[in-house]
Amino acid sequence: MIEEGKAKIFTVINKDYKGPGKKSAGFYNPTWHLDRDIQILFCRHIYQQGARKFLDGMAATGIRGIRIKKEISKDISIDINDVSKKSYEIILKNVKENGIEATILNEKFCNLVSRKKYDYIDLDPYGSPSPYIPCIFEGLKKKGFISISATDVATLSGVFKKTCMRRYLANPLKMQGAKEIGLRILLGYIARIAGIFDYSFKPMLSYHYAHYFRVYGSIEKGVKKAEKSLACVGQFYWENGWKIGKSLNAKKIAGPLWTGKLHDKNFIKILESSENKKIKEMAKKFMEEDAISLPYYESGKIAKEIKTRQPSLDKLIEKLRRHGWEAARTHFAGNAFKTNAGYDEIKSYF
Amino acid sequence: MIEEGKAKIFTVINKDYKGPGKKSAGFYNPTWHLDRDIQILFCRHIYQQGARKFLDGMAATGIRGIRIKKEISKDISIDINDVSKKSYEIILKNVKENGIEATILNEKFCNLVSRKKYDYIDLDPYGSPSPYIPCIFEGLKKKGFISISATDVATLSGVFKKTCMRRYLANPLKMQGAKEIGLRILLGYIARIAGIFDYSFKPMLSYHYAHYFRVYGSIEKGVKKAEKSLACVGQFYWENGWKIGKSLNAKKIAGPLWTGKLHDKNFIKILESSENKKIKEMAKKFMEEDAISLPYYESGKIAKEIKTRQPSLDKLIEKLRRHGWEAARTHFAGNAFKTNAGYDEIKSYF
Repeated sequence: MIEEGKAKIFTVINKDYKGPGKKSAGFYNPTWHLDRDIQILFCRHIYQQGARKFLDGMAATGIRGIRIKKEISKDISIDINDVSKKSYEIILKNVKENGIEATILNEKFCNLVSRKKYDYIDLDPYGSPSPYIPCIFEGLKKKGFISISATDVATLSGVFKKTCMRRYLANPLKMQGAKEIGLRILLGYIARIAGIFDYSFKPMLSYHYAHYFRVYGSIEKGVKKAEKSLACVGQFYWENGWKIGKSLNAKKIAGPLWTGKLHDKNFIKILESSENKKIKEMAKKFMEEDAISLPYYESGKIAKEIKTRQPSLDKLIEKLRRHGWEAARTHFAGNAFKTNAGYDEIKSYF
Repeated sequence: MIEEGKAKIFTVINKDYKGPGKKSAGFYNPTWHLDRDIQILFCRHIYQQGARKFLDGMAATGIRGIRIKKEISKDISIDINDVSKKSYEIILKNVKENGIEATILNEKFCNLVSRKKYDYIDLDPYGSPSPYIPCIFEGLKKKGFISISATDVATLSGVFKKTCMRRYLANPLKMQGAKEIGLRILLGYIARIAGIFDYSFKPMLSYHYAHYFRVYGSIEKGVKKAEKSLACVGQFYWENGWKIGKSLNAKKIAGPLWTGKLHDKNFIKILESSENKKIKEMAKKFMEEDAISLPYYESGKIAKEIKTRQPSLDKLIEKLRRHGWEAARTHFAGNAFKTNAGYDEIKSYF
């Protein structure tokens, strides 16, 4: 029995658990505690915008759905679904234990969302969310909200390039900036699939933590709106530093990917005022990093390249700013920074 | 009451019918007679390969499904589905009239294929098939067959470029070769979406007729196989004639699209031996055109460009061949031809 937020959860201790991609019924993953706290803040935010029908689409223990029902409001409806029979039974037990009202389902995700409509859908699969993303748009009203997990960070960050091409229809790069490129490929994929269904997509929070990517966003039906969000899908290339757009000669090209904002300021402000210290700290970086759309640089890799020591990140950012460049910390890594300065300038401040 | 093949069909005379994109219950479209005859040959072919469970997914009158059941074999099962209640009632009536056994359904296509599995799925929507294609792979066994109609030929052929980008994730071109590029964009889209679901895709017949594109193909599950079919997805560009691959400077680039074979020879041979004169005639061109993967040229447009008269197509092709080039007729247009000769060579034979 585990307690998290306002939920008490029975879970299965799985001795065979070997990593994020392993599938098992009723599995409770403590690494995700941070995200589930963020999710509650997100659900509270969209509740204020009118969301009432919520779906925890791949629920495992049911913890996300149970917490949403307990911690948001009594006047929301929550559907908690898992395709596994064993998980379904664990969810039944957990819902009873927590004394909440919920509709518990034992269906294939795509089957469920092709017959019911929601204001908010959470998609938290084992492994890649890619094959489930086209289904989502069948299950959302004209306006809606989504959250999506991706644990295939290695694939999206260029370790398995062919798999990324196949699963996300985009080219990753394995080099500095790789994780941001990976996350932006996921965002671009969501926006492109949304477009097929005449939906627009707008990220509200997109982040990397531990072994996962997590995206929160809003969607809205309409061809013009869809075209507007597709205008944010483009490419990054490396030509003595990161550039945006199409290059004629660059050998390192990533995309198609999301070149727009990763976060929505209004929601990040809510995270900033959270009592959770870790969330507060991340939110500061979310707010700062989003001024610069180009992928991050890694001071460790640059120092190695020019055979010098890593400067203090604070000082480096200060120097860049003093010379008129934009520069910012990023949540992606401790020794990473974002800037619109050229690569030669960056190196000259080391 | 209409008779086609072995089927008798009640249909709705729709006074408001204005074109291929117009949706109406129980609509019978005589333009498609040719394709339905081809479909029977296709179904007979895949029956011999073991296909038994057939789905007419967006049936309107039910004519495709009824003909399949009547003209293939008694030991197949056929599901006939339409989301419209009115169409559903027309199908009930037509199935009864034809005295066949069939399961008649009134479901959303994606809902149906997310819960039932078939050997063969026919997808014949009003307008673009693009949003339904991701669903198909939920409804097929490990190996299966599909046929897909697209009536948005103008979009795929570059008249509505933005819509093509949004719906098929590919860039079309409005110029000579446009229809082949459009059809190949559709094929490439199917292969790319198949890849997301770990499926390979192989076209068996891909053609343009009247106001529609139509694709028949096989699919099979497996990552290696999927990667192999994705290797056939690439680009065409125009640089003094059609070229395949990536160009650094070309302004006219089409794709991603299918650069492989449009047809399967074994199936085309069956079409060639058909008693239907029109099908026989088209099949000859299908067989001939598939030796050259580059898009077709139009002799009318070239003649206009170099201010001369159009040569006889037979003589032009003969000349090209005599000079060692591959050259062929194509089903796409009467004054179109395919060749691997450069554009200057082509023009010199006018």
